[in-house]
Amino acid sequence: MKTLYRPELLYSNGTFITGGELLVGEDGRIEALTNSFDRNHTHIVALPGKALLPGFINAHSHSFQRLIRGKSESRVTSGTDFWSWRGTMYHAANGLDPQQVYDVARMAFLEMLLSGTTTVGEFHYLHTTPNGQPYDDPNLLAKQVIAAAQSVGIRIVLLRTAYLRAGFELPPDPGQARFYETTDSFLHAMSELLPHRSDRVQFGVAPHSIRAVPLAGLRTIAAFARAHHLPLHMHVAEQLAENAACLREYGATPVTLLAREAILGSDFTAVHAVHVTSHEIQMLADARTSVCSCPTTERNLGDGFVPADAMLASGIRIALGSDSQAQIDPLEDARQLEYHLRLQHQKRAILDQLRGKSLAAELFDCATRNGAQSLAVNAGALQPGEFADCFTIDLNDPSIAGSSANDLLPILVFSLNRSAVRDVIIGGQHLIEDQHHPNQAEIIARYRALHTTIWPQPR
Amino acid sequence: MKTLYRPELLYSNGTFITGGELLVGEDGRIEALTNSFDRNHTHIVALPGKALLPGFINAHSHSFQRLIRGKSESRVTSGTDFWSWRGTMYHAANGLDPQQVYDVARMAFLEMLLSGTTTVGEFHYLHTTPNGQPYDDPNLLAKQVIAAAQSVGIRIVLLRTAYLRAGFELPPDPGQARFYETTDSFLHAMSELLPHRSDRVQFGVAPHSIRAVPLAGLRTIAAFARAHHLPLHMHVAEQLAENAACLREYGATPVTLLAREAILGSDFTAVHAVHVTSHEIQMLADARTSVCSCPTTERNLGDGFVPADAMLASGIRIALGSDSQAQIDPLEDARQLEYHLRLQHQKRAILDQLRGKSLAAELFDCATRNGAQSLAVNAGALQPGEFADCFTIDLNDPSIAGSSANDLLPILVFSLNRSAVRDVIIGGQHLIEDQHHPNQAEIIARYRALHTTIWPQPR
Repeated sequence: MKTLYRPELLYSNGTFITGGELLVGEDGRIEALTNSFDRNHTHIVALPGKALLPGFINAHSHSFQRLIRGKSESRVTSGTDFWSWRGTMYHAANGLDPQQVYDVARMAFLEMLLSGTTTVGEFHYLHTTPNGQPYDDPNLLAKQVIAAAQSVGIRIVLLRTAYLRAGFELPPDPGQARFYETTDSFLHAMSELLPHRSDRVQFGVAPHSIRAVPLAGLRTIAAFARAHHLPLHMHVAEQLAENAACLREYGATPVTLLAREAILGSDFTAVHAVHVTSHEIQMLADARTSVCSCPTTERNLGDGFVPADAMLASGIRIALGSDSQAQIDPLEDARQLEYHLRLQHQKRAILDQLRGKSLAAELFDCATRNGAQSLAVNAGALQPGEFADCFTIDLNDPSIAGSSANDLLPILVFSLNRSAVRDVIIGGQHLIEDQHHPNQAEIIARYRALHTTIWPQPR
Repeated sequence: MKTLYRPELLYSNGTFITGGELLVGEDGRIEALTNSFDRNHTHIVALPGKALLPGFINAHSHSFQRLIRGKSESRVTSGTDFWSWRGTMYHAANGLDPQQVYDVARMAFLEMLLSGTTTVGEFHYLHTTPNGQPYDDPNLLAKQVIAAAQSVGIRIVLLRTAYLRAGFELPPDPGQARFYETTDSFLHAMSELLPHRSDRVQFGVAPHSIRAVPLAGLRTIAAFARAHHLPLHMHVAEQLAENAACLREYGATPVTLLAREAILGSDFTAVHAVHVTSHEIQMLADARTSVCSCPTTERNLGDGFVPADAMLASGIRIALGSDSQAQIDPLEDARQLEYHLRLQHQKRAILDQLRGKSLAAELFDCATRNGAQSLAVNAGALQPGEFADCFTIDLNDPSIAGSSANDLLPILVFSLNRSAVRDVIIGGQHLIEDQHHPNQAEIIARYRALHTTIWPQPR
């Protein structure tokens, strides 16, 4: 049976329509945006007092890092830079058994759903046992993460990560024992995963970084991705030390090297891209690459400011990711693209009208359709043929109350609190009703037990 | 009858206590933190699965600016700098009748309560009719704001503002018509207000800024504040243009001038203090002044970065304010003190252990006890003699789930979402239960009607 959603306001292409309706087919895809159509044989869902919007696309997540939320905000436990922070992260990574990989992923995915996120790109790099041995199924942990997404209901693009070494001229790091593979074992595992593809489960290829994947392996892995038409994601230029090591090894910084090797392309997403020159931004734009920015994580890690103004002006699409899960708040990520520039330049409305779009529409696209393009999923906008992935907001929520069709978009982009998100629908399935997921109590109880195992309490 | 609150965790001085209890007297003040006491003749409120914390103190609010939330994020409507943004703000300020001043203040105060804020310092500068005539009661609008606070239940410190001119060598600005007074009319109005003082309504004196209050008036107003033992708040060094004008007029920048005039002091709060030198930070510290930072507004306005590291290291107490109401999110303000420094310096844990306190405790104090000190209210900490102003968080909220007594503080400071705030108690009165205020629907309905009046919709 088809379903017709009748919200008070319906988001479509940068504006809100009063009295619009969304018709969803039995296959979970949008059939039409309409306000005049035959209601026979259709299940009608009235959503009075609510606006219906396309779900957010989280293009870069490490779900297990939910475990280090709040655990890395001290000089004593996690040092004062990115590289010392990794020790805390490795502690969490190395303590998890396969069941716990599932449990923490469910916790992170539940919170994403409650925030209006309907697709997650999970950059997955936990592969082996804690002492570095492959499991009988070398994709066991990837499948645990996929099962977690299926259990919660979120659409997933598993970006299976290749992590081949600690770095240029560096010995293996025991903290990374669960990450390492060879190019061959990576390709073998990737090939085994692909037949598991479905509407709700898709795949991508993620050479971790220039630091962790030497050029020969990178060429092979990128060729594999392209042969299979898979999106290609990679951490690029997050930290200056990473750029310096690449320069020493290859005589070029990461973006320049990737451009020279023709690894950049419209299927490529450079995650972070914080430390890039204007010349490199032009290289990214020329190759039609996407950038995935993760502002709430980048501020937590002290990575630096992403030059979103130069990127958007040059035509680069910026997607967004929750990355370390310091916060799961897609619109907070979106507004930080603009706000961090305001702080640097002491100007306002910096990303407004850069290419004919309003500031709010530009940022909303970063949180939705740009992520969908980066992950190659048919979602991110409410239009016929796309998955019916969407969420509602309560128009009476105190964070946005008072707005109407023509001024709702800027207030929600700049001020919406999660308290406003009420329903979440994925592929036409009503997963969150009135801010509640049916398995919420069980997911949280299991996560609480796991948390105590990884971080035993002092007596 | 006394009330005993029995949460799962009780916040006290930077840590959480398991099984602690809070005893509140009939006068709305805390009598004891105890876990062994005579339960006769006491109303017991069990709060299982919740932590109880001191309420946030919002030390700098302009409640009517809730009306411009989302309305100033475009080059077309609000320009690209602070000074053009003011046009949008003036439009809202000039459209309000006394009833509407009340309605918008209730909306802002309701959202503060729902965020766990229990005291607001309202920097109030709307005094006259839209064409600049005093009302029959020159404090009519101040009293409307006070009535709004009383109606919602939030504790208020009305910082009555003196606004005497547009600026050095500037003609009067029609947009500021409702703000202007003389020193005499200000002092007269202030004297009339003071007898209205009560537990829930206190007063402070707020010369708007060096720009808007010339030195002669400032001296008189500061002397009045000191004679009446009232807190003294002033916008200081928010924008570079303000510093430059002060330098031209007085041969000194604002902080230097205020230090020279002995207007700085332990009763003085410098709001913003973004553009200050290290020498000026030392002047503020030497005078034992407070700084009130408003990071969510300062990033929205493009003011710049507050040098919180130098300030805290020199012993300055930093309070926090929601200011323009771009967001009402006290912990987002708190974490930005640290995060904006991380982005600038590409380091982490910058404010940790600066003076022997953990980063999370430092930031939590900014959101609570530092604000209480700035506003001179007996609140901001759960200790005997203080007002029983507090809120609860749901320990199963997805933004913080998994934490226990010894790691809850950093996760809530860095990651708590408003969705976790459940109860709000002011002076022992349970105002918000299960995230709901009894007058919520009426407050929002009235606000929605008002919003449409100020911003008529295009047909």
